[in-house]
Amino acid sequence: MRMTVGTAVQAFTSTAPPAVILAAGEGHRLNGVNRGSPKPLTPVLGLTLLERAILSCKEVGVLEFYVVIGYHADKMIPYLRALEQRLSVLIQPVENLNWREGNGSSALSAAPYVSRPFLLLMCDHLFDPAILRLLLSAGKNTTDCLLAVDCHPDHVFDLDDATKVQLDGDVVTRIGKGPPPFDAVDTGLFLCQPTLFQALEVAKDKGQHSLSAGLAELIRSREFRAVTIGGRFWFDVDTPKSLSRAKSALLQSLSKPDDDGFISRYLNRPVSRQISEILVRTPISPNGISLMSFTVGIIGAVMFCLGGYIWTILAGLVIQLSSIIDGCDGEIARLRFQSTKFGGWFDTILDRYADTAIVAGVSFGYWLAHPHAAVWLGTIFALTGFIMASYVKKEYVIRYQSKPPGGLIGRLIKRDLRIFAIMLGAIANRPYEAMLLVGFLSHVGIVWILLKGHRQMR
Amino acid sequence: MRMTVGTAVQAFTSTAPPAVILAAGEGHRLNGVNRGSPKPLTPVLGLTLLERAILSCKEVGVLEFYVVIGYHADKMIPYLRALEQRLSVLIQPVENLNWREGNGSSALSAAPYVSRPFLLLMCDHLFDPAILRLLLSAGKNTTDCLLAVDCHPDHVFDLDDATKVQLDGDVVTRIGKGPPPFDAVDTGLFLCQPTLFQALEVAKDKGQHSLSAGLAELIRSREFRAVTIGGRFWFDVDTPKSLSRAKSALLQSLSKPDDDGFISRYLNRPVSRQISEILVRTPISPNGISLMSFTVGIIGAVMFCLGGYIWTILAGLVIQLSSIIDGCDGEIARLRFQSTKFGGWFDTILDRYADTAIVAGVSFGYWLAHPHAAVWLGTIFALTGFIMASYVKKEYVIRYQSKPPGGLIGRLIKRDLRIFAIMLGAIANRPYEAMLLVGFLSHVGIVWILLKGHRQMR
Repeated sequence: MRMTVGTAVQAFTSTAPPAVILAAGEGHRLNGVNRGSPKPLTPVLGLTLLERAILSCKEVGVLEFYVVIGYHADKMIPYLRALEQRLSVLIQPVENLNWREGNGSSALSAAPYVSRPFLLLMCDHLFDPAILRLLLSAGKNTTDCLLAVDCHPDHVFDLDDATKVQLDGDVVTRIGKGPPPFDAVDTGLFLCQPTLFQALEVAKDKGQHSLSAGLAELIRSREFRAVTIGGRFWFDVDTPKSLSRAKSALLQSLSKPDDDGFISRYLNRPVSRQISEILVRTPISPNGISLMSFTVGIIGAVMFCLGGYIWTILAGLVIQLSSIIDGCDGEIARLRFQSTKFGGWFDTILDRYADTAIVAGVSFGYWLAHPHAAVWLGTIFALTGFIMASYVKKEYVIRYQSKPPGGLIGRLIKRDLRIFAIMLGAIANRPYEAMLLVGFLSHVGIVWILLKGHRQMR
Repeated sequence: MRMTVGTAVQAFTSTAPPAVILAAGEGHRLNGVNRGSPKPLTPVLGLTLLERAILSCKEVGVLEFYVVIGYHADKMIPYLRALEQRLSVLIQPVENLNWREGNGSSALSAAPYVSRPFLLLMCDHLFDPAILRLLLSAGKNTTDCLLAVDCHPDHVFDLDDATKVQLDGDVVTRIGKGPPPFDAVDTGLFLCQPTLFQALEVAKDKGQHSLSAGLAELIRSREFRAVTIGGRFWFDVDTPKSLSRAKSALLQSLSKPDDDGFISRYLNRPVSRQISEILVRTPISPNGISLMSFTVGIIGAVMFCLGGYIWTILAGLVIQLSSIIDGCDGEIARLRFQSTKFGGWFDTILDRYADTAIVAGVSFGYWLAHPHAAVWLGTIFALTGFIMASYVKKEYVIRYQSKPPGGLIGRLIKRDLRIFAIMLGAIANRPYEAMLLVGFLSHVGIVWILLKGHRQMR
């Protein structure tokens, strides 16, 4: 079944190219997991493979999709219709009756729909949308077909099964699943010109129906080039084992090691990823998780107020739990492509209020045993340090339009470390002293960032 | 004396055009003020007229200047040499021996130096550099000569003496000092093409040596257009009376009514302008003034700690003084063209620390008479409100890349009002209660801005 492109196409205007997604195969190696449903519908952390492919494209502005189906087209078409509504994009199903011939035959069946450059994706590849941005950016200066390649084969799961390429500079000189030597691994993400269809036709006339055979024709005319993806995430899902590895690799790809503090990176993230893996299957929203983390923080603050060693230890553990959950909102948002400006902002503001409550709770607990006004001056000192450590960085971003200085001190004045230090203090029955210490550290960090800014100005 | 353009010109690369500044006249009407020194050297709030003209151009990227001199060239040349060093720009003195003929003759003497579009300015005009940006922006789409005009003649001091224009759309159809009717007033700021020199030559051949006569030639070929300046500041300084009015108009132009809160606008600014007028003549830097305001704030905070009604009232007045001085750093920076990213940032951070100290002082004073822990919980509540009211706006700017919502609530959570409210509270011997009230108001404002951001996202 091939449908004509409806008038709805005109309704979608986007500067991004359309995307052709190959989703025709059976994926029999995943049959055990899928219980007979087609491979594109395999769920991965809350979304199907196909949904992830479409949403990843939508992240870079793509709104027009041609999804080539074959195996179980009867199940796929209603699913695509539902997806089109839900994701507010145009999805044109393209049925390839000869899908068993090879993926080149599937790509070729999109030819009548596409007469300008287009993204070409395999629906069973998970990837960081930033790779598409690299392709689109590289595509501005060339009319060759472009393939995103990974130059770190040691990172690739099941390298034997992967398609590899040989390169001459950035020109692809060979592509295929054969043995070494090779220079990089094919990630299955392309920015193609309509010339690809002519190349596929030539290969087809030779009786070859794989995408690689078509690409080999482009290689002959040196119209096929590689774009390296650096360390960006991608994963080819083929077997139950690779599916399970893909999930953990995807979770791992969500955290930004450069932005995370030490405690976040080595303690909070490994735990929050486990929690996110569970939460992503529930209907709770990222903002809901922010509120959840905030509420747990407030509970911890109240527990500090009760005084006594047992409550103090418990309070310390509870605020550390709150800090761990604080990582989940962003993870869930990125997992579900639900990141919003408001979400990040809301989370930050709630964090500052939770900090305030924790500082108040710790101080009140301490004051019960040490009823001096000086206790509260220490509180004010620490609280200002905590909020201003974040404030000074926001100001830096606004004034200098660049990231605030990182480095050791930059990481020492982050929330993950503050909360962790107070928890350690609580365990040692010295939460107030720990709070003063990280408060002091915060003020040092603030002065350090100011000095950095002053130097940058010169 | 005409000098050849030195090799130094090549060292300056800027996309902005060069500027020709007419500074040849005697300005005899200002002789009483200047005691014989040439008019371009007339000091206006810490800088000479010529220095202001050059620095205003430098604000929009101009680095290459041709200053036409005539009267007292012997005094002007060493001054220009010194200015060139001090301002790090290229200044080429262009002496016009026939300067008495008219300003057209002076403009024409720059002809050998300029073969591309250039800004043309009268050195005795004060103006907002934003007007130059308007001209440069309008100049991108035309090869006509452009004149910045003011369509609000009621704002113009000494309208009789001003040059007026008649317009047909934005095409200038008449220019001169004659009587009405006219559509707008000539601000003396031009973006010219080298064709101006040909027009001046034509006028010269007719025995006319004024700039207006040359422009009349451009009008004939409809190559002369007007760019309206909206409400932006400009001022023509000719007489001792206009000089004095120019100073107060310049001071007035420094504050941004949209950014200022109510108290700042109607109470602090009128006073801070008077202080700035004095401070600008001292060597104190804008950052030094920030530190001064901060120090006064800390003194007020300490006075609150002493308790007792007298100290409380004094403390209230001192923090209000600190809030007034807080306006001077920006005013002095703008007056001296010394605004820096760091300066604004440093000021903001110091303000938050001063707020902290004031909150601590007010609370300590109150606690002396009411020694309950609840006092300090109120302190934490107010302090978080004060800092977060600013924090939430910074976040808004970063997330939405636009100004945070203003309006009534936006203005109610600004520092000027907080300090003023605490001062009023101090006079009523209720500074703590006043602090709690504005703290509450701050939290309301924070929630309001969050809701605004949430709505904007949708």
